[in-house]
Amino acid sequence: MVIIMNPDANRENIENVIAAIEANGLSAKVMEGSTQKIVGVIGDKTRIASVPFDAMDGVESTVSISKSYKLASREFHPASSIINVDGVNIGDGTPVVMAGPCAVESKEQLFEAADIVKAAGAQFLRGGAYKPRTSPYSFQGLEETGLKYLAKAKERTGLKIVTEVTVVEAVELVAQYADMLQVGARNMQNFGLLKEVGKCGKPVLLKRGLAATIDEWLNAAEYIMSEGNADVVLCERGIRTYETYTRNTLDLSAVAAVKHLSHLPIIVDPSHGTGKWRMVKPMALAAIAAGADGLMTEMHPNPAKALSDGPQSLTPEHFRDIMNCVNKMAKFMREENIINW
Amino acid sequence: MVIIMNPDANRENIENVIAAIEANGLSAKVMEGSTQKIVGVIGDKTRIASVPFDAMDGVESTVSISKSYKLASREFHPASSIINVDGVNIGDGTPVVMAGPCAVESKEQLFEAADIVKAAGAQFLRGGAYKPRTSPYSFQGLEETGLKYLAKAKERTGLKIVTEVTVVEAVELVAQYADMLQVGARNMQNFGLLKEVGKCGKPVLLKRGLAATIDEWLNAAEYIMSEGNADVVLCERGIRTYETYTRNTLDLSAVAAVKHLSHLPIIVDPSHGTGKWRMVKPMALAAIAAGADGLMTEMHPNPAKALSDGPQSLTPEHFRDIMNCVNKMAKFMREENIINW
Amino acid sequence: MVIIMNPDANRENIENVIAAIEANGLSAKVMEGSTQKIVGVIGDKTRIASVPFDAMDGVESTVSISKSYKLASREFHPASSIINVDGVNIGDGTPVVMAGPCAVESKEQLFEAADIVKAAGAQFLRGGAYKPRTSPYSFQGLEETGLKYLAKAKERTGLKIVTEVTVVEAVELVAQYADMLQVGARNMQNFGLLKEVGKCGKPVLLKRGLAATIDEWLNAAEYIMSEGNADVVLCERGIRTYETYTRNTLDLSAVAAVKHLSHLPIIVDPSHGTGKWRMVKPMALAAIAAGADGLMTEMHPNPAKALSDGPQSLTPEHFRDIMNCVNKMAKFMREENIINW
Amino acid sequence: MVIIMNPDANRENIENVIAAIEANGLSAKVMEGSTQKIVGVIGDKTRIASVPFDAMDGVESTVSISKSYKLASREFHPASSIINVDGVNIGDGTPVVMAGPCAVESKEQLFEAADIVKAAGAQFLRGGAYKPRTSPYSFQGLEETGLKYLAKAKERTGLKIVTEVTVVEAVELVAQYADMLQVGARNMQNFGLLKEVGKCGKPVLLKRGLAATIDEWLNAAEYIMSEGNADVVLCERGIRTYETYTRNTLDLSAVAAVKHLSHLPIIVDPSHGTGKWRMVKPMALAAIAAGADGLMTEMHPNPAKALSDGPQSLTPEHFRDIMNCVNKMAKFMREENIINW
Repeated sequence: MVIIMNPDANRENIENVIAAIEANGLSAKVMEGSTQKIVGVIGDKTRIASVPFDAMDGVESTVSISKSYKLASREFHPASSIINVDGVNIGDGTPVVMAGPCAVESKEQLFEAADIVKAAGAQFLRGGAYKPRTSPYSFQGLEETGLKYLAKAKERTGLKIVTEVTVVEAVELVAQYADMLQVGARNMQNFGLLKEVGKCGKPVLLKRGLAATIDEWLNAAEYIMSEGNADVVLCERGIRTYETYTRNTLDLSAVAAVKHLSHLPIIVDPSHGTGKWRMVKPMALAAIAAGADGLMTEMHPNPAKALSDGPQSLTPEHFRDIMNCVNKMAKFMREENIINW
Repeated sequence: MVIIMNPDANRENIENVIAAIEANGLSAKVMEGSTQKIVGVIGDKTRIASVPFDAMDGVESTVSISKSYKLASREFHPASSIINVDGVNIGDGTPVVMAGPCAVESKEQLFEAADIVKAAGAQFLRGGAYKPRTSPYSFQGLEETGLKYLAKAKERTGLKIVTEVTVVEAVELVAQYADMLQVGARNMQNFGLLKEVGKCGKPVLLKRGLAATIDEWLNAAEYIMSEGNADVVLCERGIRTYETYTRNTLDLSAVAAVKHLSHLPIIVDPSHGTGKWRMVKPMALAAIAAGADGLMTEMHPNPAKALSDGPQSLTPEHFRDIMNCVNKMAKFMREENIINW
Repeated sequence: MVIIMNPDANRENIENVIAAIEANGLSAKVMEGSTQKIVGVIGDKTRIASVPFDAMDGVESTVSISKSYKLASREFHPASSIINVDGVNIGDGTPVVMAGPCAVESKEQLFEAADIVKAAGAQFLRGGAYKPRTSPYSFQGLEETGLKYLAKAKERTGLKIVTEVTVVEAVELVAQYADMLQVGARNMQNFGLLKEVGKCGKPVLLKRGLAATIDEWLNAAEYIMSEGNADVVLCERGIRTYETYTRNTLDLSAVAAVKHLSHLPIIVDPSHGTGKWRMVKPMALAAIAAGADGLMTEMHPNPAKALSDGPQSLTPEHFRDIMNCVNKMAKFMREENIINW
Repeated sequence: MVIIMNPDANRENIENVIAAIEANGLSAKVMEGSTQKIVGVIGDKTRIASVPFDAMDGVESTVSISKSYKLASREFHPASSIINVDGVNIGDGTPVVMAGPCAVESKEQLFEAADIVKAAGAQFLRGGAYKPRTSPYSFQGLEETGLKYLAKAKERTGLKIVTEVTVVEAVELVAQYADMLQVGARNMQNFGLLKEVGKCGKPVLLKRGLAATIDEWLNAAEYIMSEGNADVVLCERGIRTYETYTRNTLDLSAVAAVKHLSHLPIIVDPSHGTGKWRMVKPMALAAIAAGADGLMTEMHPNPAKALSDGPQSLTPEHFRDIMNCVNKMAKFMREENIINW
C-alpha cells in the first residue's frame, strides 16, 4: 500500500501515519519529492487492510498495490490447474462445452435437449432448476423435480450435469444430483452461498458478477477455496456497460487477464454475454481463440417456445454447427501450437 | 410489448408472431409503415414475459414498455407510503437520519457512537454485525454478539436499530434484535434473502445494487412486498461507473425517479456513495434538497481507528454540523413549501 | 509515480528501472517487502509521463499518484476563482442561471424565451446556433443567423449570451456575438477547439464529456488555460452509465470533487443531466445544495413544439417556479452560513 | 416510434398526440389495452425525430424503433463493402494488419519500425504525427515532419500509410501524405472533422468513441458517407467501463453487431483496447475468430523507449509471432469455411 500525502502535509502528519503503520507491526518508508510526499508500507498488507489512512490529517489518498486473494493467484500456484469433474477434465487444453436449455421445463424438453447436446459432442448438460429472475412473477424453476430430470438425463446420456444453486439451503440437495454447482452472476458476492459451496465437495462454476471487477471475481473464488474446495472454474458471461445493443458486453479480455493472474480454468458464456443467438457463434470462436478452456451456451430443442431466455438460445442446427467449428478450431490451435500466454 | 419486425419480414412471419401472442390469450395489433412493421401486444404482459419473440423468423427485436412490478408502483398505490419503524415515521416529510459505525467493533465503541448519534438528534443507530467483505480475510463482523450490543445501545439511548442481514439463516435472529433489517447492495438480487425478509415481520431497508437499474431495484422491492411485507424503504448508495475519484457515483436523480415511479420512501447514503468523508456534507444536503426522506451515514467516534470503511466515516464534530445543517434546510424547505414532485 | 515489480523480479530488473528513472533526471527509491517490491519516483512527473515502465522486464504495473494539470488545480491557486462575464460574476456565492431554448429556431421564439428568462430573474440567455447532433439528418442550427438573433436578444433584455461553438473555424465569429463560449460534452477532448477558445479572449463554459473522468475534465480546462485564458467555468451535465431511465446520470458529487481539486467555478445542467423535465427542479435544488455556482437549464416558450431536446425543456411556469425556489434556497444557505467545503 | 401514454392519460391527451403526428405528415395507430395505451407512428421517422412527444400531457415516454443512419446500414447495401486503399482491399476475407509505433518520433525509429512491419507481412504502416493527449504538457506529435517521414517510409517499403487527423485544418495536409485518414476515438463525434474527412477523397478509418454506442458510431460513419465518401472502415478499440485492470474493455461483440447492422468493414485494435502488450496476441486471435477484417496494433522497435503508449506496444519478436499466428488462423478459417454471419 502506498499513502499519498497532501502537498501541504506537515512533519507531524507524516509521523502519525508512520506510527499507525508501525503499530500494526509493519514498516514504513517515506519518499519526499519537491511536490509530493508518499509513504510506502512494507509487509503483509492484510494486516492493515482496514486502517483508514484516508481519514488521517494530511493524507490525500491511498493506493492498494497488491492482491487480496492468494489461493486463487498464479503466484501461489504457478501451474495451470486442471479440474476433474466426474472424469471430464477442464483446463487440459481441450475445450469443454456445457450446453442445454436455460431452464429445465419438462422431462421431454430436457431429454430432447440432452440427446442433441450429447450427439453434437458436448461433455456437459446445463439447465436451471432454480432460476434467479428479476421479477417475482417470472418462472422460478422446477426445483427438486428439475434436479431429478437432470440426473435422469445423465443416466440416459452420460453427460455431466452443471446446474445453478441460488440459496444456501439448497446446496446439499443440488450437490446430490449435480456434478458441478454453478454460482450465478447475481450471487457472485453472496458470501454465505460462496462459503457453503466451498464445503459441498463438488466442483464449482463461478460466474462473474454483473458489474464485478476481475479482482472481486478472484476474491469470490478465494471465498470458495478458503473453505477447502480448490475445484473452481470461472465463467465470463458479460458485464454491464452503457451499450444497449447487446444484453451485456462480453469481456473476452478477461480470459487473458485471468490466465495471467490465476491458475484456475476459465470458460465463456456467449449466450448470456450477448443476449442474441446470432452472436453466439462468432463469440464462441473468439473465446476459444482467446484461450478459454470451454464454453457454456444455451441450446433449446425449440427456442421459440422456451420459457425463459429464448432470444439467446440456439436451435439444434446452430448448435451442431458451432460445436463442429469450435472443435476444428481448437484442434488446429493445438496442432499449430498457437498458445496464448 | 412491441415486436419490431425486420424490413424483409414476410406475411407468414408476421402471422406466426400474431399466433404466438394469441396462443397466450392476448391480442395483437399490427402497424405497417413504408420501411417498418411492428406488432403491438395488448393485455397482461406477465403472460408473455417468457415468450422468445426475438428468436422467431422475421423479428428484429422486442421492446418492453410496461413495468414488471406492481405492489411497489405508484400507479398501484398513488399516495406516498409512510413506514412506521417502532414509532418513527419514514416518509412523512421530516427526514430521518440513520448513523453509526460501519461495523460494530466493541460495546465501548458502539455506546460512544450511540451517545453521539442520539445527542445530535438522529433517530436510528446503524452498525454492522454481519459484514459482506470482498476478501474472505477481512473482518466479517461480530455476528450475534454485535446484535446484542446494538440492542443494549437501544436500551441506553432509545435509538431505533437498523442492521444488515446477509444470509437467510440469520434473518430470524437479526429480526429479534433489530427494528429494521437492511439488505445490502451486494444482496439486492439475492432472491432467497429478499423472500425471507419479506416474511420476517419487520421493516426492511433495501439498498440499491452496485449496478442495478431503478427497474431492477423496484422489482427487488416487489419480491419483499409480494411475500406480504409492505414496509420497504429504499436506499440509494451510489452506482458503479467508470469514474474512479469517488468510490461510487451517487445517483441523486434516482430519488426523483423513485418518487415518480413508486410510493415507497427513499433515503440516501452519501458515505458509501462517495467513499470520502469530505463529500458527505454536500451530498447529504443535496439529497435532502432532491427530496430524500432521510439519510444513512457512517459516523465513528474515532474514524482513524475504525476497522472498516474508515475513509468515509465522519468524526463526531462533522456529524453534528451535518445534522444541524440538514435539519435547518429540511425545516426551511417545509416552511417555504419547496416541494419536489 | 510508483512502479510495482513482479514478485519474481530480480536485482537486474530493478536496476534497469532505476536506470531509466535516473536517465530522465529523476531519482528513485526502492521499497522491498517480503512479497512485494516497489520503486518510487521522485521529482517532476511530467518528465517521465511517457516512459513505458510497464514494458520493462519484471514490472507488474505502474500507479500514477499526482495530477497532470496545474493551472486548474486548487494547489496552484488556493482561493476560489470568480469569473466576470461582461459584468456578471460566476463563483461569488450567488448562483447564476443560464436558461433558454436548446436551439435557436427563430427570432420570435428566441425573443419570447429571452423575455421569460429575464423576467424570472436569470442572468444568461442560452441557445444553440451550432448544434452537434448524433445524426447528420437532424437539425444542425441556424449558425450565424442564430448568433445575430442572440445578440439582438441581448440588446433587448440585457441578458448575457452563452452559446456553443463546435468547430475551430467558428470560434472567432461566435466570440464576436457571445459573452461566453460553450464547449460541449462531445468536444471536451477536441483539443484543437480547446486551444482555439483558449485564445479567443472570452470566458469559456466547459461541459464535462459524456464519459470523462474528473481528471480528464480538469486537464481539458488546462488546455484552455495554458493558452492564456483563465476564465473557465465547468459544467456538470451527466455522465454515461448503464442506467437507462435517465438520459444520463447527473453526477452531483462532481461538484464537491471539483471544489476540492480546483479553484474554478462549476455549474450544473439538470436538463441534459436527466433528459426529463420532471426531474429538473429536484436536481436544480440538489445542485445548489451541493455547492454549485449556478445552473444551466433548457426553457422553451412552448416545449411541445421545440425542434430539439423537447422532453427536457421546461415550460415558462415550471421555470419561474424553479427560479423562485432556487433563489430562496441559495439566500437561505448564505444567511445560515451553510457552506459545503 | 412508439409513444407510451400514462395509464391515466385521457382521450384528449391521445388526440393531441395523434394531431402532432399527423401535423408532420405521418399517420398514427392507437393500441389500447387494459392497463396501457400506446400510439405507434408510421412513416419516415426522420420527420418527427425532433418532436418532443415526452413533453406532451399524458405521455410517459417514447421508444425509438428504427435506425437513424441509412448509407451505413446493411439494409441499404446488403452486400459487404470492400474498401480499396491504394491497391489493398479491406473486407475481402483476408485480414489486413496495420502496425507501427503509437507516435512518429524520428525518421530512424519509423524506418526501423516500417522495415519490421513490412518483413512480418503487414500491409499498412501506422504512426501518429498528430497526437491527441489528455494533458497539454504531453508530447503532441511531430506534425508535418512526421507526415513526411511516413511518406518516406512508404517509398522505402511500399506499405500503405494510415495516420490520425485531429483538426479540420490539417485534413488537406494529411490527405496529401496518407493513404487513409484515421479519426480517433476522442473525435468520433467531432462532427466538423467528420464532414471534412467526408470531402477529402481518401478512405477513412473511424475509431469507436470512448463511450459510444454502436448506433452512434454508425451515425458518425453516416456523417462521413453523407458527404460523398463511401470508403469508411470502422475500428473497435475498447470502450470505457468500470473495470480498471484493462485500460478499456475491448468489445469484440461489436464486430458481430456491425457485421449484422452494416456493410462496412471493421477492424480491431487490441493494443488500445487492452493497454497491455501481454493481451495483444490473445485478443488479436479472438478478433479474427469473431470475423474482424483486420487488426491495428502498436509495434515499436524498442517499446521500453517509446515516447507514448509504451506499455501496450509489442516488441518486434512478439509482433512477428502474432502475424504468423493470425495469418495461419485466418487461412484455416477460410479453407474450412468457418464463416461467422
